[in-house]
Amino acid sequence: MTTLPKYPLQYGKEENLIRVIAAYAAKRAGEIGAENVFNFSIGNPNVPAPARLTDALHEILQTVPAAQLHSYSPAAGLPWVRKAVADDLNSRYGTDYTADDLYLTAGASGALAMAFHGLIFEGDEVIVFAPYYPEYRVYAESFGGKVVTIRCREEDFQIDPEALRAAVTEKTKIVVVNSPSNPAGSIFSEETIRAMADILREAEARYGHPIYILADEPYRALVYDEHVSLPFIPKLYDNTIYCYSYSKCVSLPGERMGYLLVPPQVEDHKDVYAALAGAGRILGLVCNSTLFQHLLPHCLDVTSDLGIYQTNRDLLLQTLTAQGYEMARPDGAFYLFLKAPDGDDLAFCERAKDFELIMVPGTCFGYPGYARLSYCVETETIRRALPAFEKLMETYR
Amino acid sequence: MTTLPKYPLQYGKEENLIRVIAAYAAKRAGEIGAENVFNFSIGNPNVPAPARLTDALHEILQTVPAAQLHSYSPAAGLPWVRKAVADDLNSRYGTDYTADDLYLTAGASGALAMAFHGLIFEGDEVIVFAPYYPEYRVYAESFGGKVVTIRCREEDFQIDPEALRAAVTEKTKIVVVNSPSNPAGSIFSEETIRAMADILREAEARYGHPIYILADEPYRALVYDEHVSLPFIPKLYDNTIYCYSYSKCVSLPGERMGYLLVPPQVEDHKDVYAALAGAGRILGLVCNSTLFQHLLPHCLDVTSDLGIYQTNRDLLLQTLTAQGYEMARPDGAFYLFLKAPDGDDLAFCERAKDFELIMVPGTCFGYPGYARLSYCVETETIRRALPAFEKLMETYR
Repeated sequence: MTTLPKYPLQYGKEENLIRVIAAYAAKRAGEIGAENVFNFSIGNPNVPAPARLTDALHEILQTVPAAQLHSYSPAAGLPWVRKAVADDLNSRYGTDYTADDLYLTAGASGALAMAFHGLIFEGDEVIVFAPYYPEYRVYAESFGGKVVTIRCREEDFQIDPEALRAAVTEKTKIVVVNSPSNPAGSIFSEETIRAMADILREAEARYGHPIYILADEPYRALVYDEHVSLPFIPKLYDNTIYCYSYSKCVSLPGERMGYLLVPPQVEDHKDVYAALAGAGRILGLVCNSTLFQHLLPHCLDVTSDLGIYQTNRDLLLQTLTAQGYEMARPDGAFYLFLKAPDGDDLAFCERAKDFELIMVPGTCFGYPGYARLSYCVETETIRRALPAFEKLMETYR
Repeated sequence: MTTLPKYPLQYGKEENLIRVIAAYAAKRAGEIGAENVFNFSIGNPNVPAPARLTDALHEILQTVPAAQLHSYSPAAGLPWVRKAVADDLNSRYGTDYTADDLYLTAGASGALAMAFHGLIFEGDEVIVFAPYYPEYRVYAESFGGKVVTIRCREEDFQIDPEALRAAVTEKTKIVVVNSPSNPAGSIFSEETIRAMADILREAEARYGHPIYILADEPYRALVYDEHVSLPFIPKLYDNTIYCYSYSKCVSLPGERMGYLLVPPQVEDHKDVYAALAGAGRILGLVCNSTLFQHLLPHCLDVTSDLGIYQTNRDLLLQTLTAQGYEMARPDGAFYLFLKAPDGDDLAFCERAKDFELIMVPGTCFGYPGYARLSYCVETETIRRALPAFEKLMETYR
C-alpha cells in the first residue's frame, strides 16, 4: 500500500456535489430529453463568443506563420500581449502598470493557484466570505493555509466590516474578495471595500507585515444596473493581487485566457512577483496556449451580448419574487442565490428535481439555506421553467 | 516585510542560466543580425506543423459551434478525446487502457507537476539520472521530495543498474526516466529498463510499498536509427506513470497538448489516479484549451517532417566527430550533448560565443563537462556553423 499525500488524494476522491448534480442533469436529459430538464447548475456561458473574436481567430491563423504562432512563449506570456493588457488597465483606471506586472495564466484558476501557492507560508490564515467559490479552500489548504470564514450578511450579502476586524489575526495573510460573486451575484460596494481596506491597513501596521487582498474578478464585465458601481480594488488598497479571466465576458471559458496582476504598489513588489512566477513554474504552468495569447488583445474592448444575461436576471428576479421566493439581489455575474423556503437547501434542491429544476445547494459554497441558480441559459428555458418554480413554491405553502 | 514560502520565491528569483543565454542570443542577434548568430540554445521545434493539422484546425473552427467548441471541458479532458488517445495506445502497444486512465494536461509540464504533487509525501526520495531536465528538481523539491542523482555512464549515457540498486532506499518513491532524453538525446535500451524494473520490483517487495517509474517521453516520436528500439515502459513495469506531450512531434509546443496516463496495472490504480487528479485540481489545471483538445485526435497518426532533424543530427554527428569532438550518441530527441574538450563546460560555452555559437552548459542539467546543442534549427544554419565549430576546436589544440 502506497502512502499518498493528503490533499491531492482528498480533493481527488472528494464527492464533488456539483459534479454529481451535473451528472444527474445529463442522465435525466437522456431519459426525458434535454429540453425538458431545466438545468441551472452550470456556470458555462451560453451566449456565443462575439463574431469579432471568431473572425480574429481565423485571421490570426491565416496571417501569423504557424511556427511562430504555436511556438513556446515565455512562461509569463508574450510581452506584447502583457503590454496590451497593461495599457488597457491603465486607460480604464488611470494606473501605471507595465508588462512586467502581469503574468498570463490558464484562466482565473491558474492565477488563483499561483497566488495561493506563491503567498501562503505554512500556517497562514486566509479569510473568505461565505458564500464562496469552493476551490478557494482547495488552494488555501493544500498549500498549508487555514481558511477562516466570514458569513456575508443575509439582508444584503455585503460584508460587515466589524466581522472582518474580529477575524483578522497576526496570521492573516490573504483576504479573498470575489465581486461580482459566485454564487451570490452580489457586488461589494466601494464603501465596503474602503472600510475593509482601513481595517487591513491598521492590521498591517499592528502586525508589521502585509495582508493581501486577493481580488478574483472574472465576472467584472457582468454588472446589470447602471447605478451599481464596481470599485477597482487595487486603487483602494495597495497590497492587492488581482486575478482576471476573459472566460465569462467573451464566452471562451475552455480557452483559459486569464491573468495575474501584481501592481507596483504592492510592498516588495519584485519579490512578490517572483514568488508568484516561481509558483507558476512549480505548478507546471509553462505558458497558456499561444494561439489564445495572440487572441487576447482582441478581447480587451469587446464582450459577448451580455444583454441576454440581463434579460434572464430581470425575468427571474421579477417572477420568482412575485412567486414568493427570497433571494440575494443579483447585481452581477450570472447567478441567483435563492433562499430555500424552509431553510433546508439540500432538501430544497432535491424537491426541485421533482419539477425537473436543477440547482446547486448553498452548502457547496459554505452557505446553507440557499441554492445557486445559474442563469447563463436560453431565455426561453427560463420562461418554460417559471411554472415549475411556481409549483415548487406551492409545495412549501 | 512579508514572509513568502521558500520554493516559489527561490524558483521565481533563481538566475535561470538557460534564460540568460537565450537573452544573450537575442541581444547578439540585434547587434550582428540573427543570421550571424548560431543559436543552438532553444528546444523549440522549427519544422512547421503538418498541413493536415493546420487544415484540421480550420475545419474544427468552421464546423463545431463556437459555444460548444470553446466551453469548459471536464477537468480531465473531453471523454471522447481521452478515448481516442487510449485507443491509439492500445493499437500501438496491445494494452487495455480506457478513457478513465487518462488525464489531458497542459503539455508534459502539467503532467509532471501533477505526478510529482500527487505522489510525493514529505521526505520521499526521487531518483533522477543526470544529465536531466532541470524542472524535475523544481517539482520534486517544491512538493517535499528529496532529489537523489545518479550519473549516466559517460561511455554510452546509459544507466548502470548497480548504481540504481545502490541508490534505492526505503524512502524511494519515484524514479524518473526520460527517454529519448533531454539533454543527451540518449535512449534507454529495453535491456536497461528490464534491469531497472527487476531492481525496483525487488525493492518494492523489500520495503512493502510501490516505487513508481515516472516515464517522461515527449521525444518518443524522435528516434533516428531503425535498429534502435524504444521500449514502452508501462509494458515492462507495472507501477509506471506515463507523461506525454505532442509539442515536439507535431511542432505545436505553445498549444500545450499533453496527457498523463495511469495504467490499470498500477497498484491501487483508483487512488493513484484520484491523487493525480486531485493534484491537478490543486494546481489550478482546470482543463487544457478545448480547441486543442478537439485537435488532439488529429495528432495521433501524424508528425511534422522529422527527417529534417535526422539530416541535422547526421550532419552534426559526422562533422563534429571528424573535427575531433566527443559526444553522447544522439539516438533521439533533437539535442546533441557535446563534450567540452578540456572538461570545463562553462568556459567552453563562453569561448564558443567568440565564434557566435550559443550552447547551454551541461552544468544546467546536473552534468558538468558537456554542453547541450539543440539542433531544431534550419539545416543551412548548421552548415554555416560548422566552420565555427572547427575554429572553436582549434583553440583547444
